[in-house]
Amino acid sequence: MFLIEAFVYIGTIAFAISGSLLAIKKDLDMFGVLLLGLTTALAGGVIRDLMIGNIPPTNLVDPQYFLVSLLASLATILFHEKFDRFEHGIAFFDAIGLGVFTAVGANAALSLDYSQPFLIVAMGLVTGIGGGVLRDVFVREIPLVFRKEIYGLASIAGSVALIVTYSLLSPVISLYICLVVTLTIRILALKWKWNVPIVHKKPNV
Amino acid sequence: MFLIEAFVYIGTIAFAISGSLLAIKKDLDMFGVLLLGLTTALAGGVIRDLMIGNIPPTNLVDPQYFLVSLLASLATILFHEKFDRFEHGIAFFDAIGLGVFTAVGANAALSLDYSQPFLIVAMGLVTGIGGGVLRDVFVREIPLVFRKEIYGLASIAGSVALIVTYSLLSPVISLYICLVVTLTIRILALKWKWNVPIVHKKPNV
Amino acid sequence: MFLIEAFVYIGTIAFAISGSLLAIKKDLDMFGVLLLGLTTALAGGVIRDLMIGNIPPTNLVDPQYFLVSLLASLATILFHEKFDRFEHGIAFFDAIGLGVFTAVGANAALSLDYSQPFLIVAMGLVTGIGGGVLRDVFVREIPLVFRKEIYGLASIAGSVALIVTYSLLSPVISLYICLVVTLTIRILALKWKWNVPIVHKKPNV
Repeated sequence: MFLIEAFVYIGTIAFAISGSLLAIKKDLDMFGVLLLGLTTALAGGVIRDLMIGNIPPTNLVDPQYFLVSLLASLATILFHEKFDRFEHGIAFFDAIGLGVFTAVGANAALSLDYSQPFLIVAMGLVTGIGGGVLRDVFVREIPLVFRKEIYGLASIAGSVALIVTYSLLSPVISLYICLVVTLTIRILALKWKWNVPIVHKKPNV
Repeated sequence: MFLIEAFVYIGTIAFAISGSLLAIKKDLDMFGVLLLGLTTALAGGVIRDLMIGNIPPTNLVDPQYFLVSLLASLATILFHEKFDRFEHGIAFFDAIGLGVFTAVGANAALSLDYSQPFLIVAMGLVTGIGGGVLRDVFVREIPLVFRKEIYGLASIAGSVALIVTYSLLSPVISLYICLVVTLTIRILALKWKWNVPIVHKKPNV
Repeated sequence: MFLIEAFVYIGTIAFAISGSLLAIKKDLDMFGVLLLGLTTALAGGVIRDLMIGNIPPTNLVDPQYFLVSLLASLATILFHEKFDRFEHGIAFFDAIGLGVFTAVGANAALSLDYSQPFLIVAMGLVTGIGGGVLRDVFVREIPLVFRKEIYGLASIAGSVALIVTYSLLSPVISLYICLVVTLTIRILALKWKWNVPIVHKKPNV
């Protein structure tokens, strides 16, 4: 599990940076930048824990995720101009975050003996996108996951892969498969600008 | 309880359609349309379950509500132009949804031996309007329940009717009374355009 | 604890007034004004209770907080023009609300034997700002705590003071110290217009 733990930190850092960068773009004050970074990094796991009864939520008890998020947000305040130039790099880390948070979230539902497939997929999705949804709502954006690019779909595909391989292979291997499937779909979608089609509203005749 | 169950499906379908129609109007992509339909249909029950400790929430465990919402959202993508012409029909189904979700929510608080009247009314309201509130927040609208028409008031009146009749009559009958009271007030408000007055802010002299 | 209880009512009233005033400014209808007042006054405690497993949340069970909030919101509808002239007075009551809700929230985490410092600070912050964050999200404002003035920082300083003094002095005294620290910082920030600096986004060269 050591490798997964390392990926969790990468995802936490990427999510904290994405929240802090958006906060800076929206002219929030420094406290707002730190708070939005923390919210983006920690909220997905908190919402998942509320839904599966893991009380109090791990992200609010174990201080290491908070500390890593805080450091990442502080670094964003100091170096945000340089971070802008690494937009693609951050999108790549964000994809790692989506993948690993999906894997950890789906696995949390599974390991608590909740074997309902819909719940597992929902917990993967909530953990993966929850922080980003709150981030966008707090600065009055329609959440990214509703708007464009293969984002939520990548998470769902990863959780389905985890469910399929969980009993066939070992649980740890299925975690990595979930991460790799989510990450691969997300990266390919970014690279080739895959988008889900928009249902254009035609005027009534 | 069979009839109530049938009403729950009607309400779930109506709420999924209302979320999907709004998503299409806001030019969300197809995934966003499905996700907003699901959120509108399922979130009220999820929030209520979090508040009364029904973990994990029924709407995330029993797949039938998810499947019904998904089918209703897919149908909305295919036939949304036709649905537009049935705006009044959808408002009618939505009123059924408000009524039945209020009844189910208030009853869930009651049947878990929480006999506090305010909690019962609050759980009816949260279940009835929660999905719609999230739907509106996610597309940057002020939630409908804050803005116009007798909506939340209909839910509150229904829950009060349920509390009053619960011990006098049988629990099942009080469920139907709650549904009928909420539905009737909501339909009459739509038909005669009842609105709660606005407190206009007068300029300071 | 009698004095703390009195402060809780003052805070509840101040938060209900702040929600109702904002709702009137945004032209919500009377039901919306009452609902936003109630949400602002009660939601912080509800979210905290969900996170520490105090189910169902106290604010939804004990009717006195609901009744006090309802009366304060009704009074706001009747006298909002006069309340406008007392803007500074309301900001002062709001500061009491922030202080006492922070103290009560941090103390709730501590007294449930959750001795993790980050959780205690987070529960103080969530209880103190949660209602205001929902209030602002529901009327499409970026939540105040992200935007300006020493608000969240005052709450954090108060919780830290509570943690430091909790084992040194008596729990009750540390509650008052938390309240006084939060209140003092918040009032001084208002009086001297202290703000956290904004991280201005410089254009890329």
